[in-house]
Order: sequence, then C-alpha cells, then structure tokens
Amino acid sequence: MVGGGPGAFIGAVHRIAARMDDRFELVAGALSSNPERSRAAALEMHIAPERAYGSFAEMAAAEAKRPDRIDAVSIVTPNHLHFGPAKAFLEAGIHVICDKPLTTTVEDAVALAGIVKKSGLIFGLTHNYTGYPLVRQAREMVEAGELGRLRVGQVEYAQDWLTTPVEATGNKQAVWRTDPAQSGPAGSLGDIGTHAYNIACFVTGLRCEQVAAEVSIFVPGRRLDDNVQTLLRFEGGARGMLWASQVATGNENNLRLRVYGEKAGLEWGQENPNYLRFAPYGKPPVTISRAGAGATASAKHASRIPSGHPEGYLEAFAQLYTDLAEQIAARNAGRAAAASSLLVPGVKEGVEGVQFIEGVLKSSKQNSGWVKLPTAD
Amino acid sequence: MVGGGPGAFIGAVHRIAARMDDRFELVAGALSSNPERSRAAALEMHIAPERAYGSFAEMAAAEAKRPDRIDAVSIVTPNHLHFGPAKAFLEAGIHVICDKPLTTTVEDAVALAGIVKKSGLIFGLTHNYTGYPLVRQAREMVEAGELGRLRVGQVEYAQDWLTTPVEATGNKQAVWRTDPAQSGPAGSLGDIGTHAYNIACFVTGLRCEQVAAEVSIFVPGRRLDDNVQTLLRFEGGARGMLWASQVATGNENNLRLRVYGEKAGLEWGQENPNYLRFAPYGKPPVTISRAGAGATASAKHASRIPSGHPEGYLEAFAQLYTDLAEQIAARNAGRAAAASSLLVPGVKEGVEGVQFIEGVLKSSKQNSGWVKLPTAD
Amino acid sequence: MVGGGPGAFIGAVHRIAARMDDRFELVAGALSSNPERSRAAALEMHIAPERAYGSFAEMAAAEAKRPDRIDAVSIVTPNHLHFGPAKAFLEAGIHVICDKPLTTTVEDAVALAGIVKKSGLIFGLTHNYTGYPLVRQAREMVEAGELGRLRVGQVEYAQDWLTTPVEATGNKQAVWRTDPAQSGPAGSLGDIGTHAYNIACFVTGLRCEQVAAEVSIFVPGRRLDDNVQTLLRFEGGARGMLWASQVATGNENNLRLRVYGEKAGLEWGQENPNYLRFAPYGKPPVTISRAGAGATASAKHASRIPSGHPEGYLEAFAQLYTDLAEQIAARNAGRAAAASSLLVPGVKEGVEGVQFIEGVLKSSKQNSGWVKLPTAD
Amino acid sequence: MVGGGPGAFIGAVHRIAARMDDRFELVAGALSSNPERSRAAALEMHIAPERAYGSFAEMAAAEAKRPDRIDAVSIVTPNHLHFGPAKAFLEAGIHVICDKPLTTTVEDAVALAGIVKKSGLIFGLTHNYTGYPLVRQAREMVEAGELGRLRVGQVEYAQDWLTTPVEATGNKQAVWRTDPAQSGPAGSLGDIGTHAYNIACFVTGLRCEQVAAEVSIFVPGRRLDDNVQTLLRFEGGARGMLWASQVATGNENNLRLRVYGEKAGLEWGQENPNYLRFAPYGKPPVTISRAGAGATASAKHASRIPSGHPEGYLEAFAQLYTDLAEQIAARNAGRAAAASSLLVPGVKEGVEGVQFIEGVLKSSKQNSGWVKLPTAD
Repeated sequence: MVGGGPGAFIGAVHRIAARMDDRFELVAGALSSNPERSRAAALEMHIAPERAYGSFAEMAAAEAKRPDRIDAVSIVTPNHLHFGPAKAFLEAGIHVICDKPLTTTVEDAVALAGIVKKSGLIFGLTHNYTGYPLVRQAREMVEAGELGRLRVGQVEYAQDWLTTPVEATGNKQAVWRTDPAQSGPAGSLGDIGTHAYNIACFVTGLRCEQVAAEVSIFVPGRRLDDNVQTLLRFEGGARGMLWASQVATGNENNLRLRVYGEKAGLEWGQENPNYLRFAPYGKPPVTISRAGAGATASAKHASRIPSGHPEGYLEAFAQLYTDLAEQIAARNAGRAAAASSLLVPGVKEGVEGVQFIEGVLKSSKQNSGWVKLPTAD
Repeated sequence: MVGGGPGAFIGAVHRIAARMDDRFELVAGALSSNPERSRAAALEMHIAPERAYGSFAEMAAAEAKRPDRIDAVSIVTPNHLHFGPAKAFLEAGIHVICDKPLTTTVEDAVALAGIVKKSGLIFGLTHNYTGYPLVRQAREMVEAGELGRLRVGQVEYAQDWLTTPVEATGNKQAVWRTDPAQSGPAGSLGDIGTHAYNIACFVTGLRCEQVAAEVSIFVPGRRLDDNVQTLLRFEGGARGMLWASQVATGNENNLRLRVYGEKAGLEWGQENPNYLRFAPYGKPPVTISRAGAGATASAKHASRIPSGHPEGYLEAFAQLYTDLAEQIAARNAGRAAAASSLLVPGVKEGVEGVQFIEGVLKSSKQNSGWVKLPTAD
Repeated sequence: MVGGGPGAFIGAVHRIAARMDDRFELVAGALSSNPERSRAAALEMHIAPERAYGSFAEMAAAEAKRPDRIDAVSIVTPNHLHFGPAKAFLEAGIHVICDKPLTTTVEDAVALAGIVKKSGLIFGLTHNYTGYPLVRQAREMVEAGELGRLRVGQVEYAQDWLTTPVEATGNKQAVWRTDPAQSGPAGSLGDIGTHAYNIACFVTGLRCEQVAAEVSIFVPGRRLDDNVQTLLRFEGGARGMLWASQVATGNENNLRLRVYGEKAGLEWGQENPNYLRFAPYGKPPVTISRAGAGATASAKHASRIPSGHPEGYLEAFAQLYTDLAEQIAARNAGRAAAASSLLVPGVKEGVEGVQFIEGVLKSSKQNSGWVKLPTAD
Repeated sequence: MVGGGPGAFIGAVHRIAARMDDRFELVAGALSSNPERSRAAALEMHIAPERAYGSFAEMAAAEAKRPDRIDAVSIVTPNHLHFGPAKAFLEAGIHVICDKPLTTTVEDAVALAGIVKKSGLIFGLTHNYTGYPLVRQAREMVEAGELGRLRVGQVEYAQDWLTTPVEATGNKQAVWRTDPAQSGPAGSLGDIGTHAYNIACFVTGLRCEQVAAEVSIFVPGRRLDDNVQTLLRFEGGARGMLWASQVATGNENNLRLRVYGEKAGLEWGQENPNYLRFAPYGKPPVTISRAGAGATASAKHASRIPSGHPEGYLEAFAQLYTDLAEQIAARNAGRAAAASSLLVPGVKEGVEGVQFIEGVLKSSKQNSGWVKLPTAD
C-alpha cells in the first residue's frame, strides 16, 4: 500500500476491503510521504520491518527484486500522487490498484494509460460504487434491454461536510481536497463528481459526448469548487443531468442514479443500497433486493449474504478487490479471468473521468457552453 | 366556470376544491367550447338553465348584468383559451381564478397583467402546489432565515404518462397538451415545468435571473417537448437545476423540491406531501409533519385536520380557493384581507411563468446558452 | 347533523366529507347537547333558523314531519350519545350515518341492530378507514385469492397524543374520550382499537373468533385504557395481533395493516395511504399506487384523481358518504344500489366492534385468557 | 472454528466477521461432523493439515496442548451441537464464541453457565444484531433516560423463506432448522424469536418477567413452529409484543424494534440499519444516522466509516468479534477490558434466551396463559 497512513480515511477502507474476502494480505507499505512516519505506520500495522518502506520509489524498487514480491500495490494517496507511484510500480512489473481520479491532468492520464497498455499489467481504479451488487444489476438490466432505448439519466452525489470552511480548522480530509496542489484543478468535481459520472456511464453503458456546466464555490475563501451542476448529452440522444455538491446541507453521502428508457425506469441510491426500484412502463414498480428474488447473475456474484441482511459500502469496495484478485490470479496462471470479475473500472474509465473534469471546468469557464468530450481511445 | 366539461380532469378538481371549505357554489357555467355540449354539461351539474351558457362571452355578458352575479369565475380551459375569457370577465367586473400557464405568449401575459391592474379585481392563478401546507411552511422557514443565505435549489417534476404516443390514441388530456394550437409553444415545459419553476421561486423567495436549457422531444411524432432540463441562476448567487419530464417511466406526479442554505436544508415531495425534511447543518434531520409539532402558522392555516391524518392534492387545491374567497370577501366588504390568505399566486407569477417558458425555449434553440429573464415589472 | 358543534374535531370532518362529492348538503342540526349552544352553532353554519334545533329529539320529531325532510342524519356525538339519537331518527323513518363505536354496551348494540332491521333503513357506521381506495383494493385482492389462504394478520394503530394527562388540561377531545360516562368502558380500545379491528376483518374477510388481551393504563390518574395489546384467532386458523396505543410517543395516527397468506403478503399504512405493498412469494414486491397501474375496480371507484396526486383522510371519509348517498338514492328510487356502494360498514360491523371491546376487556380482566367472541347474528 | 463447513451460511459469515477488523485469523478447524469432510474443508480454507481436525473433541484436546494454541473457538454448528463443543473447549481452557440459541434445553444452558463461571473464560454469544451501532446507541439513549420510564416495547422479526415446505426439497438450512433433533424444541422461535427477544431486552435494559404466547405451525408437515406471537410483561410495568415468523410472505429479514417511554420513542429496523428514528414527545422526530450528527459513543465505537456510507450485517457481526478480541487480549494481558468492548451478549443472555423458548412453548401449550420466566441467576 502506498499512502493511507494515520488519519487517512480511505486507507483503512482499502485495507478492510482487501481483507474482506480473504484474497489479499497487507505485507508491505510506504504509508506516508514522510519516510519516518511511513515506516512507523507500517510497523504499527504489523508489516515486517524490511518491507516498511520510506517511500513509494524505494518500495517499488525493493519489491520488484523480492521472490515473494507483492501481487499488487494499492495507491491511496491524494490525487497529485497517483501518477508517480502508478508509473513506478507498473514499470517495476507490479499490478496496480489506484484510487480515483486517475490523475490531475488529462496529459498524465493519457500517459498512464499508455504505460498500462505497454506493461500488460492489471490496473484497477477504485470507483468503488460500481462494486455494489445492484449497480451491477442495473447495468445488466440496461444491457439486456429491459429499459429499452434510454432517454434520460439523472445522477447526483450530494454531501454537506464542506458546508463551512472546515479546511481552515485543519481537518486533514478537507485540507488536501480543497488544495489545488494536492487535489488538482477540481474540488467536489473530482472528489465525488467523477464517481457520479462513472456510475452513470457504467450503468447506462453510454458514452457522454458533451457537457454544459456551472461550477461554483460557495464557501468564502475556498479555492476549489464545492458545487457542480451539469447538463449531459449521451451518445444516441439520451439526455442527462449531473449534480455534485459538498454544501448540500443534510446530505451525507447521497449518490443517486435514475435512468429512464422507452420501456422502464430504474432508481438506485447509495445510502440504502440493498434495494433497486424497477418500474416497467404501465405496471406497478417493483423493489428488487440485493441477492433476493429478481437478482441477476452479476448481483449474486457480488453478494456474500442473503437478501434482507444488508451489505454496505465496505462490501462493495471489497468486491473490486476480490474481482481484481481473480484477474491477477488468472493472469498469473495464464488463464482467462472469470467473466464475472471483469466489471472493475480501469485506466480507460480513469482517462474518461479526467476528461470529464477538464470538460466541465472548460464549459463553466465558457459560461456553460457545451464542450465535447474526446473519445477515450 | 369556463371549461371543465365532460372528460376534463382539472374541471372536476376545481369543483371539488371550490366546494371543500364551503366557500363557493357552482351556479353558472360555459363548460365547453361547443355551445350545446356546454349547456348540456351545465344542466347535468345542476346549474340553473338560465345560467347554463353556450360560451364564455355570453356568460360574462349575462352574469355582469345579474344582481346575483357570480363572485368569481374559474377558467379551466386549455392554455390558448385563458386569455380571452380572463379578459372578458375582468372587463365585466368579475374576479378571476385561472389555470396555469397564464397565456401562450408573453405579450398576452403582459397585456392581461395590465388588464388585471386596471380592473382592480382579484386574479388567482392555480399553481395549486403552493396550497400545500408544508410548501407554505418551507417558504416561511426560508423567509425567517432558518436556512441562512440560500446556495442551491433543485426542483424536478417527473411524470411518465406520455412515455408512449398516447395522443395518437385519442386520449383527450394528451391531445390538447401536445397540440401547439391549444397548448402554446411548450409541452411538458408549460404543463408541469411552470409548476416546478413556480414552487422553486415561491419557496426560495428568489427571482430566477437566467436559464440555460435543453428541451427534448423523445416520443417520435410528438410536436411539443416531453422533457426539459435546465440550469438556473437565481438572484443573489444561488444556483439551481430544474428537470421536468413526462417520459420518466415509473414516475406518476413526482414534484420534488430541495433547497440548501448556509445553515440548513429542506426537502419536500408532492407524492407524500404531509412531511417536510428539515436538516440543520451539523444536527440530525427532523421530519416535520403537516400541522404537527414544529408546524408554523402558514402550515396550520392551510390544514383542516390533525397531523397523521393525511391531506392531499384536493385539499391543497382547495386552499387556493379558500384563500381567494377570503380575498374576495374582504374586497367586497371593503376591508383588508387576512394576511394568511395572500399567498395565492396571481398575475405576476403568471407573467413570470410565461417568461420562463419563453426563456427556456430560447435557450434551448441557442444550444443551451444562458438567457436572461426579464423582471416581472 | 347531531353533535359536531364548536371545538369538535370529527364534526367538521363529517361536514367536509359529506360535501366533497356534492351528494349532501347540511340543512338541519342539533349540534350540541346544550340547546342554546346548539342553535347558535347551527346558525353560524348557515342552517335555517327553523331547522336549528335544540336537541336531537326535537330534530327527529320535527324533521319527520317536514315534506323536505333530511335524507339522512349524521350522528357525531361522544359514544354514549350514539344509541339514543340513532334510535330516535330510525324510528322517525330517517336514514342514519353514525360514528363508531356503535354504542357503549353490547346490549344497546344488539338492540340497535334490531331497530335498524325493523326499520328497513340505511345505517352507515363511519369506520372511515374502509373508505381508502387501497384498503378496498386489499380486500378485493384477498377475496380474489391473490394471497391464498391467509395465515397471519398484524394490525396496529398507534398514536401519542395521550402520552401525558392532557385530559387534565381541559382538552375537549381528551376529556370525553377518557371519561367512562361519555366514552363507555373503553378508552383507546374503543377510540382506535375498534378501527384497527374493523379494518383487519374488512380486509381479511375473516371473522375473529377469540381474543387474548392485555389492556393497560400508563398515564397516572387516567380512568380508561391508553394501550391495548391483543392476540387474535381468526376463523380458519389465521392468527393475528392487534396493538392500539395512544401513548406511543412519535406516532401520530399510525394505523397499519399487514396480511400474509400462502401465496402473497399485503401491507398498507394510513399515514401514506396512496401506496399498497404487495409481495407475491418468490418475487420482488410491487408498490401499487391508488388508481395507478394495478388498481382494481374498487380502488378506482373510490378515487377522484389520478395516481401520483395524493388523496387522504377526507377523501376516504367522503367515500363512505358518497356510497351511502347512492344507497339512499337507490332506496328512495326503489332500485338496487350499485354494488360498488355496498362496502360501507353498517350495524353488523357496529355490533362486532362492541363485542370486540367487551371481549378484550373481559380477557384482560381474566389475566389475558382467551375469550370467545359471539357470532354477530 | 467448529462447524461451518461447505454449504453452511453462518460459518462463512463468522469467518468474514472475524477477519473484518484484523483481530482474528482462522488457524484450526473441525468444520463438519464427518471427520473426512471436516479435514477436507479445513484444507480448502488454507488451514494447516495438522490443525485440520476430524472432530471438535480432537481439536479441543490437541489445541489445548499447543504452545501456539487458538485464542478462541467459534462454534457455528446446529443448536444441538453447541453444548458439547462449548463444554469441551472451556474445559480445555479456551475462550468460546458460540452461536445462538445457547443450547436446546434449559438444563444444558444452566449447566453451561456454571462451566463458564468456573472456567473464568470469555464466552461470547453471537446475538449479532446487538453489534449494530444504532442498536447500541438505542440502548445507551434508554439508559441515559432520554425516553423516560419505558411503557411499551414492540419487537418483530419477520421472514418468509419457510413459506413453503422447503425442508422437503433438501435445502440444508431448512432441514436442520425444522428438525427437532438438531434444532431443539423450537423452530422460528429459536432461530429468530430469540434474536428479537434478546434485542428487546438489550435495548430496553429490562428483564421480561412473563410471556403469554401462541405458537403456530402453518406449513403442513412441518415439525417445528414457523410463527410465534407473544405478549410480554417487562419488569417495572412495561408491556410488549413479540412476533417472529418465517412465513410472512414478502419479508426477508425484517427485525424491527420500537420502544416508547414517557418522554420519547425510538424505532430501528435491521434492513436499513444505518438510521434510528428518535421522537421526543411534542417535537418532530429526528433521524439519527450511524456515526453522524447525534451519534453517541457506543455507536461511534462500533462504526468503521463515516455516516452516509452504509455499514451492514457483516460489520455488525464483526463488532462482536472485535469486542471479544479486546476482552480476550485484556484477559491475556491481565488488564481490564475497555468498557466499550463489554456489550457482547454472553452466557447469561444465552440462558435467558433458552428460558424464553421454554416459557413461550409452555404458555402456548397452556392455551396462551401467562408463564413466569425465571430470573437468570
């Protein structure tokens, strides 16, 4: 693991997620950008002293030489420290699991995609909400044509933890997320907007072709956006809206997707993720529960326990690790990975996310005019 | 009553609403544009034969001369038949209660506003959702500063009854609403988008200064929009989104408003209208019930029965009639109307609604560029 | 109308309900047990002076003689004043609409049933919750066998307005309801327990054969029960529980019914009454909306407006009046009433309710032993 | 681990729960009652061959002698195989984590309590629902007097997976649960009724003194109860109801607790466990989210991730393991365990659960007469 030392939220999440299905063990780390704190933190997590590294560069170099080297590295640093470590480990021949957004610039993103391609290694991007069983089921139902041709996609991700200038109080999570040097050019847009965008594309299976956006900073003194409102034009004529906010008082982690097609509509929300509303036109809507009646193969694959026993955020996150473990094991064994493990977002989705960020910021600067998003390839 | 003959949905609603609180009686009508059907329908509703008119013009002229003339006329015709009857009755000295949108053009709307002003008469516009007690409470809470300065307003009105080309099947409601000659230049935008816009302005107390919109027709062969997505810029810097759709499969009459300020957020939905979610920043959200603990004066004023006993659409609609009855009674008696009766939208809101329609259509034609909305005065 | 003067809650409800569908007009009244207040209240409601009576006896006698006599009387007095007026009007040949519980003793109830039978007149008992469209649909679905043979019925009616001794503060509603002289031997049991019992029998179509009950008084000094917990044995082997409470802090008017059969289950709650959950075994549950997709004939009959536009308590109450109007019109015209109008509870259900009260109280006194309920006939 | 071999549901749950917070590792097992299957299953779980035992007796004996012996054993066998293994490991000096119900007879339960007491060892009983943060918060709020003196407690646990005779189809879960030889004298009562009973006592902090019950078998041919309805008398005068059913069509794992006191009420449901409804009398109810605003110390202690990111069943289950790890570590280190770790149910709650089963069955046999429950000590 790179990053995720004391005080980090997402590092602990990655560790639980990796452990959940017993497919990974934490054996090496460069957990902090400060070499001493990095080593101390590793020892505290029962990592062997010789694998408690002072930096990601040291770790990549040393692990590459070990016969028992790590199967994969998790990169859970702030955004500006995704590219460097990812490059280093890929070049050291080690599979990479990386937090989102992929990088802070499109150039880096495209470059990294090239490095991944060249390396032939597995690259997983933890757009963790795609690990929810019912998000996968939603995608599967759309793909199977149960909604018919799609018309409208509404996605939103609302939080309120940046309603006040908490970055000024030293809140570690807020400090780096509102600092352009660490977060890149986007605030809420990169932190949660990219999740919303990713899930909308993941479920609809549609590429977003254009965005027209209004990006706002509501909290005085803040340096990056805390509210994003965007119109979306998907390929094939579907039209959407995306709203991401970290100043929506009363919202905790309210990611919600609604998709409407010619034949039916789907609604899912992250805060009560074990239920999916499916409304076929002209019939009463049904509530599909995770792993219950009506569950599809992809939802069952991503479930551990019977319906009615709620799974949550950590289980969804773990699913990405578990699917990547299968991909890695297959690669190591020279066999094809199970199809069910292939839904994890990768570097392609990473590039698309950074292009989305760039497009939204550009549109907002141009008084919300439509901006075309490049195709990923 | 003008309009609202056999097969009309909204005519029956107006009649129940008018009767609910025992402030109005239906005594005269020109219920159809066909003179014979008009008279027949009136007789069927137990209107006296001499007041069963063949046309609105005949009715306005005749009623103006009666000593027991009607206190007010309800105009519940398709959109293109609002201006003419409203003008006729106002000029006959009769108060007017008119359905929305006010007219099919801004010119007519402004002209009608002038006629109302000159007449000195009461003019009520049935943006009926403002009659819901908790919508009024929401407005009152915003006005009292309980949310602090507003930042974000998200409003949506989703239906699905036009998912297929039902107008081609002869569905009377669908036929006129998708016919530019009767409905004016807007479909879902005028039918439900104006309600969403009105309620957003009503609750926030903010004027919308600009719109950037994407208007779509999804159903092949349809002549007017069935989906509208709009970015909103309110005065004072608040930013919003408005979505209105009649092809959102699985939505019946899903009008929903969310408003977020520096201090708190509010959420209300029409389909379960007896509850208002209020989330003060940093505290757990509370669920305020209509007329229950935490109800404000305006919510109590608009309630008939204790909390826990749900009121609905008809009661909210009735509230406009009841408040207009008080306004009319006060006017007739030469006294000031009770302050609690003054929240009914009038011709000013009507003009704003038609300007909103015009602005949205203009923006959509200009590839979603921002369009400034004129000030109402 | 008998009863329902100033300060009464249910009187106003009956008046709105009677007026809603334009089938009744209030033309005569004995609105208070105090003759002067009675007459004054009637005048205030625009009742003609000669029909503003000082007592129900005077009213029954006078109306019986008028050529334009009332079609029906509404009796909305406290429980101890149901029997007398009902008897008087029936003997005067006037149809009766009476609030529940029917009487304060089983003897009176049975006697009244005899009087109704002898009179040949219409007798409606306002167990108003049976007027909700989806309650009727639930009954219809059970009757049609969609649930299969029933196994379990859980019903509850929870309120909290008697959590503290409000009767000591002079609250008029609380004073009579907690006074054995006016309310009879039952408090919450008669006030709301009978509603819960009625709706359970109404929907399941099953007779309850035995009850085993625990009746409690939680508020010190209170003279009648404020909490009732009962096991139920239905005919045919179904088993149930009934809970009624007026000290369940945080509950406003939470009447909720759940019925489970061999093939499916149904759930409905009064506070959001426009939705019915139907769960066929082995399939995901569907949410049926009032008058929407999946609505049955009886639900459509009892609906005024399209689904998504919520109807509430007053509309459900009105439905009983409207159906009774049809029954009375048919009787007056010598024709059979429309089948759709026949679901209104009558004197039979009234007798069953009073027998339920007696059985529960008896069981509770016998340390919750099972008590057999007599068959109604 | 004892039990939990192939096809077992709860074994896998225990394993994930034990691993979640990185406090336990699975190093030894007797996973099946068949020695060969037992060893094979262990090897498949990467247990070292010498610790892949053929029986629990062999395992207890062998582990007792190892210097690196297991810290604790998890017993996850059918009910009839709790007592034997628990006794064996306790007598071998090994801490025990055991599934519920504790035993199949009160005699065994009391005997086991004696053995635990004598051993001085840690004994955790996996009434896993007490591991939910908001269940612990509910208990803490009751204890702190926020509800005032309690009056009413309603608890229910509804499932539908035994609606049909699935035991006849060979469903492994159903077969043992409906077999008196493996499950003991209780079916749904032992399987889920004891959970409901435990959580009601856990949150209220009240001992249940008496039960009056109706136990039913609805599915023809079934040998153990599939529906239980019970009145409860708690110490201090609070009154309750408990309903447990495995034939409630449309319910998956619907455990729900409602507690009402003089000052406030609380409601919590397992299927959406991240929210707790708290309704102080006379104020609007608040929705407390896990680890969000209003969270108490015990809820924060049992949370891993911020509010809005749902935790679920596995996390709650893990909390018991984590708290037991702390208890065991403290015991091993000769220090007092952290107070926050002491909420895990133990052998006392186990005895109470078996006494509850016995009392309910006795009451039901006595035509639902009240049966006194012995005090646990």
